Amino acid sequence: MPLSEFSLINQFFKTQLKTAFPAELGIGDDCALVDVPKGKQLAISTDTLVEGIHFLHNSDPLLLGHKSLAVNLSDLAAMGAKPAWVSLALTLPTLNEMWLAAFSKGFLSLARQHSVQLIGGDTTQGPLAINATVMGLLPKGKALKRSGAKVGDDIFVTGVIGSAGLGLIKAREGQHDLSDYDVQQYLKPTPNVEIGEQLLTLSSSCIDISDGLAADLTHMLNASGVGAILQHEAIPMTDSVKAYSVELNELLWPYSTGDDYQLCFTLSKGLANNRQVSDWQHKKLITRVGEIVEGEGLCVNMADGSQKMIKKGYEHFSSSTDGNE
Amino acid sequence: MPLSEFSLINQFFKTQLKTAFPAELGIGDDCALVDVPKGKQLAISTDTLVEGIHFLHNSDPLLLGHKSLAVNLSDLAAMGAKPAWVSLALTLPTLNEMWLAAFSKGFLSLARQHSVQLIGGDTTQGPLAINATVMGLLPKGKALKRSGAKVGDDIFVTGVIGSAGLGLIKAREGQHDLSDYDVQQYLKPTPNVEIGEQLLTLSSSCIDISDGLAADLTHMLNASGVGAILQHEAIPMTDSVKAYSVELNELLWPYSTGDDYQLCFTLSKGLANNRQVSDWQHKKLITRVGEIVEGEGLCVNMADGSQKMIKKGYEHFSSSTDGNE
Repeated sequence: MPLSEFSLINQFFKTQLKTAFPAELGIGDDCALVDVPKGKQLAISTDTLVEGIHFLHNSDPLLLGHKSLAVNLSDLAAMGAKPAWVSLALTLPTLNEMWLAAFSKGFLSLARQHSVQLIGGDTTQGPLAINATVMGLLPKGKALKRSGAKVGDDIFVTGVIGSAGLGLIKAREGQHDLSDYDVQQYLKPTPNVEIGEQLLTLSSSCIDISDGLAADLTHMLNASGVGAILQHEAIPMTDSVKAYSVELNELLWPYSTGDDYQLCFTLSKGLANNRQVSDWQHKKLITRVGEIVEGEGLCVNMADGSQKMIKKGYEHFSSSTDGNE
Repeated sequence: MPLSEFSLINQFFKTQLKTAFPAELGIGDDCALVDVPKGKQLAISTDTLVEGIHFLHNSDPLLLGHKSLAVNLSDLAAMGAKPAWVSLALTLPTLNEMWLAAFSKGFLSLARQHSVQLIGGDTTQGPLAINATVMGLLPKGKALKRSGAKVGDDIFVTGVIGSAGLGLIKAREGQHDLSDYDVQQYLKPTPNVEIGEQLLTLSSSCIDISDGLAADLTHMLNASGVGAILQHEAIPMTDSVKAYSVELNELLWPYSTGDDYQLCFTLSKGLANNRQVSDWQHKKLITRVGEIVEGEGLCVNMADGSQKMIKKGYEHFSSSTDGNE
């Protein structure tokens, strides 16, 4: 007997390994049921990727599966939450078994890596779009919010800035080789889950810079009622991103490209010599890029001694709203 | 200064009244933060509505806002959960202020009615689709699962069957008047939240019949390892649905139309004279339609004395998967 359409979809997603917080009930009823351990609270975020907007037509489903979970895990990382569960709403134009096999492999592989259980979802027919709602756990009252940055704090970012933006340009030109670092940052971003969890006890404020450093740091500054001065020379970028922004004659281009899925966070001055912070810096996992100051807005000190003010972050309709960005 | 696109969207969704379980953090950070009260567990379900698949082109946004939350609340009702929070992922072709005003009004009005807090979401550009992930609370270990039906239990349904299916046909013909009961069931379904919550201490098994009575009751029977006999004459239907299925010469048509958002549940024989159950029956809020029997599959006793076997529920790709239907 041929598999029914229901079981066709389920067969790709039902097999999962043990996770840290197994649901009482996962896939297979009207709702999933989960228990939040005592003393913990739940962090929730949702993100949708739409074909033609967030990813190119005919994108590799393996990478899409990875990315659709990665962008959500990045939001949990920004709050310092430990990933626990995810529900997946897939909208597919057709039932393509090969596509589903690859997509689920990419999705579940990253889920396993972070001990996230897929607890359910919904599959509908329509233009290709992937929505995931991810849930993580935090010690009660300890979440890393956007609003905690203090005057004098150092500003750090994880990874590099602008690579995903350049990776998109390269991918549009047909370059899909993940050995190119920019392309990899665009097609297969790595959510900073471990750093996020460890920042919980260190950082005063943290945000996911999926909409670009300028826009998201501005959100943090506004939420915290402070301003910031960045040192342009300190911003970590690949040589190719640096060269591209020089070629464009827009040195601040990498600040607004989006899709970077890095964290921007603040640390009080006293933590400059913290062993963990030093270790991350030494390994180039994080980079100090500036300082929180009084006032408002974002000021960038350029190498030639000039200053550029970024009054407003880059906003675009295709990005997420303020709600659980 | 004109409102930015961000605030344009947020202005429609940010204003909310007090709810039963206010989130520590709602819209406005990378994640929402909620606390699950002691002794409770969390029920989670996600559903997507896609234009052209789940609703007609140019559908009234006020009704869409209502329905996109209603279909999710119906899943919570089927587990007996008390609605608490919802996150909303909207994919919109354009930023249409009138559309957003009407949609958010419909969505938030139903949210207020059930004391559900919108805790965040995501707005992206793309073909019109609405995904909501709803979260409710349950006493730990008490959820109404699909798997509890016992031989001898009575089978009940809420409301009427097949009306939404006929309502869709009428809506396609241009009939959008909510005073027509079938049209109303399709365009503005009422989730059975209160009945679901009260069934928690009464019912042995419950399911949301959004994919049609035949398909969803079959899911319950399979999960419980039992069969069922329904009395066709007992199935509650509007006169127009009865007339339509006679005209079609398919008396079982209403069993497979889907979109009904009613509950199908089982009660042990001992509850036949329970005051609450009698009261609901008296008010025609629920109807006894058959009995759980040994074996497997669904058998329908027709008025002429014949029996029809429904081996397999109606399944269609455009419906949801087994995961949190």
